[in-house]
Amino acid sequence: MPVPSEPTSFVVDTTHSPHAQLRPVPLRDVTLSDTFWQPRRRINQEKTLPSQYQHCETTGRVDNFRRASGKKDIPFEGIFFNDSDIYKWLEAAAWTLATENDPDLVQMVETVEQEIADAQQPDGYLNTYFMFDKAQDRWTNLKDMHELYCAGHFIQAAVAHYRATGKDNMLQVACRLANYISDTFGPKEEGKQYQTDGHEEIELALVELYRATGEAKYLKQAQFFIDVRGHGTIGGSSYHQDHKPVRELDRMTGHAVRAVYLNAGVADLLAETGEGALRTALDRLWDNMTTKQMYVSGGIGSRYEGEAFGKDYELPNERAYTETCAAIGSVMWNWRMLMLEGDSRYADFMELALYNGVMAGLSLDGQSYFYQNPLADDGTHRRQPWFGCACCPPNVARLLASLPAYFYSTSDKSVWVHLYAEGNARLDLPNGGSVAIEQTTRYPWDGDITLRLSEVEASGDFSLLVRIPSWCEEDAQVQVNGAGVQALVQPGTYAEVRRAWQTGDTVHLYLPMPVRRIVSHPYALENVGRVALMRGPLLYCLEAIDNLDIDLRDVMLPEQNELSAQYNANLLNGVVVLNGEAEVAAPEQGWQGQLYRTTVQASSVTPKSVSLTAIPYYAWANREPGQMQVWLRG
Amino acid sequence: MPVPSEPTSFVVDTTHSPHAQLRPVPLRDVTLSDTFWQPRRRINQEKTLPSQYQHCETTGRVDNFRRASGKKDIPFEGIFFNDSDIYKWLEAAAWTLATENDPDLVQMVETVEQEIADAQQPDGYLNTYFMFDKAQDRWTNLKDMHELYCAGHFIQAAVAHYRATGKDNMLQVACRLANYISDTFGPKEEGKQYQTDGHEEIELALVELYRATGEAKYLKQAQFFIDVRGHGTIGGSSYHQDHKPVRELDRMTGHAVRAVYLNAGVADLLAETGEGALRTALDRLWDNMTTKQMYVSGGIGSRYEGEAFGKDYELPNERAYTETCAAIGSVMWNWRMLMLEGDSRYADFMELALYNGVMAGLSLDGQSYFYQNPLADDGTHRRQPWFGCACCPPNVARLLASLPAYFYSTSDKSVWVHLYAEGNARLDLPNGGSVAIEQTTRYPWDGDITLRLSEVEASGDFSLLVRIPSWCEEDAQVQVNGAGVQALVQPGTYAEVRRAWQTGDTVHLYLPMPVRRIVSHPYALENVGRVALMRGPLLYCLEAIDNLDIDLRDVMLPEQNELSAQYNANLLNGVVVLNGEAEVAAPEQGWQGQLYRTTVQASSVTPKSVSLTAIPYYAWANREPGQMQVWLRG
Repeated sequence: MPVPSEPTSFVVDTTHSPHAQLRPVPLRDVTLSDTFWQPRRRINQEKTLPSQYQHCETTGRVDNFRRASGKKDIPFEGIFFNDSDIYKWLEAAAWTLATENDPDLVQMVETVEQEIADAQQPDGYLNTYFMFDKAQDRWTNLKDMHELYCAGHFIQAAVAHYRATGKDNMLQVACRLANYISDTFGPKEEGKQYQTDGHEEIELALVELYRATGEAKYLKQAQFFIDVRGHGTIGGSSYHQDHKPVRELDRMTGHAVRAVYLNAGVADLLAETGEGALRTALDRLWDNMTTKQMYVSGGIGSRYEGEAFGKDYELPNERAYTETCAAIGSVMWNWRMLMLEGDSRYADFMELALYNGVMAGLSLDGQSYFYQNPLADDGTHRRQPWFGCACCPPNVARLLASLPAYFYSTSDKSVWVHLYAEGNARLDLPNGGSVAIEQTTRYPWDGDITLRLSEVEASGDFSLLVRIPSWCEEDAQVQVNGAGVQALVQPGTYAEVRRAWQTGDTVHLYLPMPVRRIVSHPYALENVGRVALMRGPLLYCLEAIDNLDIDLRDVMLPEQNELSAQYNANLLNGVVVLNGEAEVAAPEQGWQGQLYRTTVQASSVTPKSVSLTAIPYYAWANREPGQMQVWLRG
Repeated sequence: MPVPSEPTSFVVDTTHSPHAQLRPVPLRDVTLSDTFWQPRRRINQEKTLPSQYQHCETTGRVDNFRRASGKKDIPFEGIFFNDSDIYKWLEAAAWTLATENDPDLVQMVETVEQEIADAQQPDGYLNTYFMFDKAQDRWTNLKDMHELYCAGHFIQAAVAHYRATGKDNMLQVACRLANYISDTFGPKEEGKQYQTDGHEEIELALVELYRATGEAKYLKQAQFFIDVRGHGTIGGSSYHQDHKPVRELDRMTGHAVRAVYLNAGVADLLAETGEGALRTALDRLWDNMTTKQMYVSGGIGSRYEGEAFGKDYELPNERAYTETCAAIGSVMWNWRMLMLEGDSRYADFMELALYNGVMAGLSLDGQSYFYQNPLADDGTHRRQPWFGCACCPPNVARLLASLPAYFYSTSDKSVWVHLYAEGNARLDLPNGGSVAIEQTTRYPWDGDITLRLSEVEASGDFSLLVRIPSWCEEDAQVQVNGAGVQALVQPGTYAEVRRAWQTGDTVHLYLPMPVRRIVSHPYALENVGRVALMRGPLLYCLEAIDNLDIDLRDVMLPEQNELSAQYNANLLNGVVVLNGEAEVAAPEQGWQGQLYRTTVQASSVTPKSVSLTAIPYYAWANREPGQMQVWLRG
């Protein structure tokens, strides 16, 4: 059993997890100073978090707590699971305060802390919906009413708050709530409710609470909530991941966010228990998701109906659901798998989802959001400043706030570099010693990365492992102090350089970024005969505003047409755009208003040449509305 | 104003409609003796209707009426709009009794008649859900609660019952209900509720009640319910076709069944009023539906979410919703357009929907049903014996029961032949005289059709107009008494032969039925590079059971490969199957579990030859489960 951790700004704390390969680096020990993430994190702090707080106030989300504590005699406002938005916001704010001195934000956080603490019931229960006339409905409909989901988000936020701020007031509330939950739910033999929630989240939260407190019963409770699934206690539907026991799951089904939150929780549990059946189940699920149910953007959950995974290869583009939260959940799950296994494929998919599936969900000004992230649009899908069901906005905020913690890990005598962006890090090696790293790069705009070990305090050899992304299909190079190294430099692995590192050593990583033409599995029917463009970790798309007077559905990109990449500092806060020649052939010339015809009626269309400009997919819908298209006729 | 009609078995009575081109033929005057429809109609009578009645009894649908009349003190059972299933069943049974002597069915109908009549309230109100504790909610939520929808189905059934049986007991109930509705809903100036129902159906029902009774206020009331739409009284959503006034609608949106029921009602109104703005609106909507939103099966409403029309060209195959009721609604609307305009395109689409979109909804044994009708499947989508929301089963039943009435029409000095199947008809010409026709054909299995005028009692010339289907792209021929005629024989028109017809004259129509390879508009993304097979009016598909050991997604049908058509009497109650050579190339050889890859990683796959057997799409899923595929790689 681990020692309870001192409050350290670990985002997911596998420090003492016996079955995790990698150890986390405190958020506070990584600083980004790049032009991609850091401006977004600043906007997150300065614009996103204050505006989200304001939305929470004006929509009654904070007032629901004031009502619950008896301070306000008002009706409950909004959706029954709105508490969770407050909790995710609190988590985001806490991670922000781990590194930033922001008195205004502190004040908002203190208000929220107080309202939450005051709303907790004497028995530990905390949910502002199930109060007063609804109090007798507490725990009566776990399948639909998200009580443990809300509790989970609070516990996760409270752990974050404790680690980020060092204050334990929220953690104490969380423990009282978790104790009450532990007393209520468990094996029938113990006289408890043998049930779980229709919306997963409590599982990963309880494992993290265990890690933060050392209290084994929280781990046991997380295990209970994982074990109880698949025994029909919440209806037995695949929508709720309740159709099979977790250890028997073989494909991703149902509500996408729930599914990935569950898997993140299972991975957390696995890091503590090492149970083989959980590991093989997660492997099957991950394979299914990444090879049969994932968009080229890293987005997941293709179906509008149920915000859900569909059948294998069911990946419509304009009708993609791909909830922002689901991509975030995929980052969370992949991160935990990476900590477990140290396999770079998890970092690859985490990076893919981060840059594309997640970041498309947020406007450049940090104040409007996509819930759904389609891969084609007719100009009608636009980001909104808020939602009735506002799960995505604070979810993006907490990911951005905690992002630096995902860049590096350590293991015995090894330092791992997962993500690339200019900045600094100070890494304590688990077996003693420390390393400070200065990362210099223009990533994601080019693949030149310099890692300077500005301070090495370690005796003997240790390894530096740098990720060679799987997208980097050709000629990746690693040099140390200007000379080539013996390390195996292979896409989709970490290149490991082991030596007695000295202060001032420099690793230069060169990841070529040619424009890649991506094709998809032929069972993904909407992409047949089509190509998508990627460069480095970024997916590209066409937007109408850059390609005037063209119906983007008609654009064809012949294989031989070259595309050039060029950085444009004045466009979309600075992006590399792709330019080239393409062809356009409007079908109407040959179709004349028909929807179907026999092949004998076929006629040919003469394509005309056009200039094409593609922008990064994450940046779409930040200018005037118009068509958008990821997959182009090849 | 028309004279109230004597009870004559007209299915849609345009006899006196001033703006309809065509006049209906009584159901009772057309007899089918073919091997396609007539066996289905017999099963409909002998199996489908009794089993549906039984379902209505066991699921409490009939008991809800007994409860409403105070005969049973039980809770309401099922969904709040379940009354409508009883009404559609009653309509189906009534049409059946128009021609069949069936004491068992008479007894069921009399039970239903009695329970309905007894459940009507003194003020004329009739809805078994809004009784007792729910009585005060009457008319309080028109958007969602389907009260006028249920009323419409009853009125439509009552009119059918009156015309089919000659008994006016249900018609009287309907008039009391319609009077109450007229007193309740109307212009604000009259102190009435300025509102309509979220689910259309009342409109066409009231026009038909007007036709059956001659009571002008019912027509006025139908017009009111059409005019009030689009003024936000039920929320202003396109889902409810309430986002624009009907006269401004320009594309099919929202819940598909509602949309086509509305349009059928508008067409009925137009037949009475001739208002140009309604005509142009219907033309726009019909163009949008048939050229941008219709499956090759004639099915409509592609989206699961909201059972709705999607965006233009949004036509997924495996994920097609294509509700059986929507295809039936399309038949209803197209029939009314045909009566209005006498344009064969409406008969073409009616026939397409009938044979494919509708009939796929019913098992060969007449006792299980599809709600959704996908165009591809992995073997998991199977017909069900009944549904909680059981709109489709009795809808199919009423269409089959009334089907003979859709075969012929008349106009001044003209007889119109719309559909082909062996049988007899006796047609009264509007201007006097009559014709008896014997139709001899194996249609839809071949296109040889003989129309023998077995009795002509008419003075002077009149025209026989025979439909040359638009699918018949080559060499259609029309002969009279063995000799060619001067008539213009052109696909997508009626070939008109005008002469002084004599008893014993014979028209021979030859409609060649080569196998047609159909391609679809390139914006229908799932069909890119694919072909569908049709022959005559029938769409074909591959089913796993006929094509063993092949993943049907991998089948490629090269353009040059010939397909032969062969009648197999022992298969699926007798069908023409298509046989030929195809190729199969499994993608996994080249893909190895990848979902995306760059084009430089592409590898080639050597296809292998296989024998292919295709069956009519309507007949799929009547044997053991397995893959089904309409669109094949071309």
